[in-house]
Amino acid sequence: MNMRFLDACWGKPVDRTPVWLMRQAGRYLPEYRAIRSKCTFLELCKTPELAAEVSIQPVEILGVDAAIMFSDILTPVEPMGMKLDFVPGPVFENPIRSMKDVEKLRIPEMEQDVPYVLETIKILRRELAGKVPLIGFGGAPFTLACYMVEGKGSKDFAEIKRMMYGAPDVYAALMEKVTTMDMEYLNAQIKAGAQAIQIFDTWGGVLSPSDYASYVLPYTTRLINGLDRQNIPVIHFVKGSGSMLDTVKLAGGDVMGLDWHVNLGHARDIIGPQMAVQGNLDPTVLFAPKTFIESEVARVLAENAGRPGHIFNLGHGIMPSASPENAKFMVDCVHRLSQK
Amino acid sequence: MNMRFLDACWGKPVDRTPVWLMRQAGRYLPEYRAIRSKCTFLELCKTPELAAEVSIQPVEILGVDAAIMFSDILTPVEPMGMKLDFVPGPVFENPIRSMKDVEKLRIPEMEQDVPYVLETIKILRRELAGKVPLIGFGGAPFTLACYMVEGKGSKDFAEIKRMMYGAPDVYAALMEKVTTMDMEYLNAQIKAGAQAIQIFDTWGGVLSPSDYASYVLPYTTRLINGLDRQNIPVIHFVKGSGSMLDTVKLAGGDVMGLDWHVNLGHARDIIGPQMAVQGNLDPTVLFAPKTFIESEVARVLAENAGRPGHIFNLGHGIMPSASPENAKFMVDCVHRLSQK
Repeated sequence: MNMRFLDACWGKPVDRTPVWLMRQAGRYLPEYRAIRSKCTFLELCKTPELAAEVSIQPVEILGVDAAIMFSDILTPVEPMGMKLDFVPGPVFENPIRSMKDVEKLRIPEMEQDVPYVLETIKILRRELAGKVPLIGFGGAPFTLACYMVEGKGSKDFAEIKRMMYGAPDVYAALMEKVTTMDMEYLNAQIKAGAQAIQIFDTWGGVLSPSDYASYVLPYTTRLINGLDRQNIPVIHFVKGSGSMLDTVKLAGGDVMGLDWHVNLGHARDIIGPQMAVQGNLDPTVLFAPKTFIESEVARVLAENAGRPGHIFNLGHGIMPSASPENAKFMVDCVHRLSQK
Repeated sequence: MNMRFLDACWGKPVDRTPVWLMRQAGRYLPEYRAIRSKCTFLELCKTPELAAEVSIQPVEILGVDAAIMFSDILTPVEPMGMKLDFVPGPVFENPIRSMKDVEKLRIPEMEQDVPYVLETIKILRRELAGKVPLIGFGGAPFTLACYMVEGKGSKDFAEIKRMMYGAPDVYAALMEKVTTMDMEYLNAQIKAGAQAIQIFDTWGGVLSPSDYASYVLPYTTRLINGLDRQNIPVIHFVKGSGSMLDTVKLAGGDVMGLDWHVNLGHARDIIGPQMAVQGNLDPTVLFAPKTFIESEVARVLAENAGRPGHIFNLGHGIMPSASPENAKFMVDCVHRLSQK
């Protein structure tokens, strides 16, 4: 097996810097769009054969060093008792606003409630046949709670902050429940065969460092501590957290995901040598001419300065309008320029 | 005159921490909505008596230590030859995409092309009668260029980054022209009577630190250096720049605006004692119960730890759904808790 990705997660030396792309199984690939044109987004998430197929596409097309299962972070929230729709952004019909709403939420039985996720992982492990490792993933409790309380994407996150500041007991009860669900969900993925776990905290960065420390850190820490982590590295990615990496680091995990707003070298200085890092090219660089893409890959590698424990990635998901040709060129650049 | 605000800009000691709110003349005030209901947003910007009236409202209602003239950062871009509309977000009919588009842009004659802005300032200086100082403002060249190239607000800023990476000569020509316009616009405000200038770089934080240094810093530096700054402090606010304050600082200016994603004390350590800071309460804190607002004001003041050169503000504009009562309570808390 190509062990570059897992070795880098553990901070071990590698022959070339491993690389994968957040949202690498997605709309920028015509091969993905061909499958997606025949079903809805949720149907794709819930049909293991198709989900596995789109997960493998970028491994074959781009030559990345890891596969990530195709799913959505909100998949396990739906069976908590929340009606989920995509229009195309996620929408919950009945957002959580009161203690009564929180009390009604149930913790899903993963084998019964999200069997398709676990089945997707099993198919992928079989079909990848040890070629590259498989990453499972989930949303961080705070990000899931944002969607559950806001009911949809938000610009200002006024509803969840209103709850956090004005009804801290309701907020705490919700976060406890979501954290428990998340832990069981990610442990079920590990049991099914996920070889690494990425936790996406897409919205953790909307908070001030002090609010993050009070209202997010305790839950993410409990989640990470509660995972069956023997041999399973955990990647923790809090988008927009570049000015509070010292705080985010306290949540634990083996790899810190970095967005493109930080200098990767400075970030490593703050985080220290005990954690690996993943990142952090600006996704829009894929719109640039190839010479520019190459120089930007070189810049990120130079910021890392040869330290072990670097997984190359974009600083956020690849954009639907990015060209697969440029994405492949970027992957090739990472491998070529980092070769020992 | 209440000199707290200007003294703090210069790092001098003050009796109480001065405070104002970004977007303090705005929709959260019923008194503003009453005036705005009778005209369009652009008409309000272009009618000096009304613009002055809404600028004074928060001084009287909230008791803030500075007034900021009511206008929009895109006001001086329209007479460059770009048709501007608000629907309600700003939209340019003819976004800039080529060198030919850039060449067609003209540098407005400020006295002829934006007389209403200069007249608003003159009325305000008269009506404020030395009660509190008057802040003038403009968008940073990069933020203005974002709107001009994207044609409207954007989530990913793909068009301007495509230009920056793929057509750097077009980008540079545009930025040069916008910077020149901006300098003349802000100097005209100073000449008309503005007693401080705030430069809003709302979108500077969408770039990586290295892109910021290459594509934004030279222009903002030229702008700040080109202002008639004798006795006029310049506040430079780059939203989302918490992880590159060391770079942003190089642009110069007297006060660094901080959003709520940084610990204000840590930010001051990075910026150093030569610059004052302005910020940085999360605007959503105004949705919280009063006891929480008070403890958050206390937290920000404690992070500053009594250092001279702190102007209290929100970390971003006050939200339209915020309550004026809570805003006033916040202002009172700042004055009460910071009293020497």
